[in-house]
Amino acid sequence: MRRNSYFSQVAKNYLFSEVAKRKEAFFHENPHSTLISLSIGDTTEPLTPTICEGLTKAAALLGTREGYTGYGAEKGNVQLRTRISQEIYQGKICPDAIFISDGAKCDIGRLTLLFGPNVRIAVEDPSYPAYIDTAIIHRGYENTILPLPCTPENDFFPDLTTAASADILYICSPNNPTGKTYSAKELEHLVAYAKAHKQFIIFDSAYAFYVQDGRPRSIYEIPGSKEVAIEIGSFSKMAGFTGIRLGWMVVPSELCYEDGHTVQSDWVRLITTFYNGASSLAQQGGIAALSPTGLEEITAQIRFYKENASLLRQACLERGWQTYGGIHSPYLWIKTTHNTSWEAFDDLLRNAHILTTPGIGFGKSGEGFLRLSSFASREVIHEAVQRIKVTSCATFPSGKVHMTKNRARVM
Amino acid sequence: MRRNSYFSQVAKNYLFSEVAKRKEAFFHENPHSTLISLSIGDTTEPLTPTICEGLTKAAALLGTREGYTGYGAEKGNVQLRTRISQEIYQGKICPDAIFISDGAKCDIGRLTLLFGPNVRIAVEDPSYPAYIDTAIIHRGYENTILPLPCTPENDFFPDLTTAASADILYICSPNNPTGKTYSAKELEHLVAYAKAHKQFIIFDSAYAFYVQDGRPRSIYEIPGSKEVAIEIGSFSKMAGFTGIRLGWMVVPSELCYEDGHTVQSDWVRLITTFYNGASSLAQQGGIAALSPTGLEEITAQIRFYKENASLLRQACLERGWQTYGGIHSPYLWIKTTHNTSWEAFDDLLRNAHILTTPGIGFGKSGEGFLRLSSFASREVIHEAVQRIKVTSCATFPSGKVHMTKNRARVM
Repeated sequence: MRRNSYFSQVAKNYLFSEVAKRKEAFFHENPHSTLISLSIGDTTEPLTPTICEGLTKAAALLGTREGYTGYGAEKGNVQLRTRISQEIYQGKICPDAIFISDGAKCDIGRLTLLFGPNVRIAVEDPSYPAYIDTAIIHRGYENTILPLPCTPENDFFPDLTTAASADILYICSPNNPTGKTYSAKELEHLVAYAKAHKQFIIFDSAYAFYVQDGRPRSIYEIPGSKEVAIEIGSFSKMAGFTGIRLGWMVVPSELCYEDGHTVQSDWVRLITTFYNGASSLAQQGGIAALSPTGLEEITAQIRFYKENASLLRQACLERGWQTYGGIHSPYLWIKTTHNTSWEAFDDLLRNAHILTTPGIGFGKSGEGFLRLSSFASREVIHEAVQRIKVTSCATFPSGKVHMTKNRARVM
Repeated sequence: MRRNSYFSQVAKNYLFSEVAKRKEAFFHENPHSTLISLSIGDTTEPLTPTICEGLTKAAALLGTREGYTGYGAEKGNVQLRTRISQEIYQGKICPDAIFISDGAKCDIGRLTLLFGPNVRIAVEDPSYPAYIDTAIIHRGYENTILPLPCTPENDFFPDLTTAASADILYICSPNNPTGKTYSAKELEHLVAYAKAHKQFIIFDSAYAFYVQDGRPRSIYEIPGSKEVAIEIGSFSKMAGFTGIRLGWMVVPSELCYEDGHTVQSDWVRLITTFYNGASSLAQQGGIAALSPTGLEEITAQIRFYKENASLLRQACLERGWQTYGGIHSPYLWIKTTHNTSWEAFDDLLRNAHILTTPGIGFGKSGEGFLRLSSFASREVIHEAVQRIKVTSCATFPSGKVHMTKNRARVM
């Protein structure tokens, strides 16, 4: 049995596995320090009361003859799809075009199989590693991946003329990792370009709830986009479902291949073959999250994480750093003075005991940047702000690390 | 954007989607009948008290600051992996080789990406449709799929000499759909053959708990199998988790490609890229299911379904039918006298108001058979037995359907 040779083309470890390894090594060397993690974007606040009640009630029901259910509906719970239609899309996307999933990452994985071999994929550079890694494992890097540099110089909006040969454009807004949130005008340009070049857009809206100034939360706010775009949504960062696992994908009935065949019918065939639906419990949690009280509670939780981002952003700006994002996004994107972003990562880890994510992990154009996540308790954010103010690491030129605990742990 | 042409090579609908369509059409024409479903293998008994308590407690904990958790461990909850190691494998498979998943079907889907292009896959014919359909969508049928006929004539054990050119052998025991349970001797022959031909075995043990006469529940009971086999396990039919979604896969560290590279390290890279773990709630349910009281309860539930199978089997045998399976399996595999199994399906649906699964849906060698599932309440099984005794449909030559309700519903 031969190995799938494409595995040798992806980085040996998934980005966050490598971050975790370096964290462990740090703990081994520094058993008495207190580490602050602003690395992986993992929610920290408890589930809200309404969601929690929805989940416990749903779990109890499964123990009763009347309430027990087995396999769910192919596209997911219809009540959940209806709520997503109404609450996320104001009824402008019908429940039939909404497919419930166990999260954005898993949908990205399944998408690679929708398009078959010989597909050319353009991705923002930097971007969420799963876009590229899933494509490489499926098809290899050569003739598949087309990186589109997104830097401060182009205001993190890619030069689409370099994407002319692509079949698919992966776009994430608010962007992970840069925090960039595309304007309606930019998205109109994107849709028009994709249409003219017969391309599909995969629009990752996992952080859409963090947009609160009227900029589009969905690609479908752009007229004509249903004919070119698939949208991926997630409850992970919206409602703290990173461990519960729940998301959705919109595949409009208007989206067709060049032979006129609808993408939606292939997507149904694909998910009924490769997948068996999100946990029925997770789906009940999603229904609770999109109830009137659920929506109020998750909106407050997102406001909390946004305040965290704002505090971090202010601290970085006060230190004179080039800081991007952190406004309509839980992520800050920071230019460092180190030669490589892994060097900056290690420096901040050793000298401020802050765990971040090196920009290079998101692509070549991420070199020289660090991503800071604001998913943390307020106590941790205050401590992080304090450390940023006084750290002696090379990027932060003066001060001393303030240690609050006498044993190694992650705050 | 071009369509993935491989979609045109799979049957238009997933088998059970087609069954559901015919069921709906039947309801439309017969609004006053009571339908009995012995079709899709979907559990019907409520979750046991221990599992239910485990789930409600876990859900409540997520609403507390101390109990909230986000993303889980890459391979899954270590407590769950330890319990699977101890309770399912008596400690003979270490927790590090066990990977928690959201179910067997999803693992089968992800497996297609592990092996890359140009892989030749041998499958038992008939077999669970996902083995073939996932491979076709990924690679097309030609030069990929090698069906191995399993019929009463060969006691449902494939002629392995016809599988010499395969890279992978998919084997399911107890078998879905035939109910065949392989003996230790048959599995030894299988392992020796795979080893001699440098093939990997994918062993689907989703129904292992139904084996209670000392025959192997796991391929790893066969010496030397760790060097050739991956095993897929599932909580669906073991503990009623069809809707909760939980399973596991064993990838032994001994399993290597011909270049010496371990399969396990690629599998870690694949799941961390394409997947984000089973719901933390489902995993807590699995931990409860494998506790001492949980194990007692699920064992009793499996006994209940096995009694169902025994009642159905007896009724079929009394009608003089060629009946297979139904002993160490929840499924019965019945030879019909119709020209096609869809005709037999329609006949039983129209004349006995019993929904089954046509054998052809599992492969060419399934033509002329029907699969009956015993996942139902005892009331439904008694009614099914009654209908089998008196039905006037062509396969069952005499009698009249007994109607218990005056409106269309599924018992």
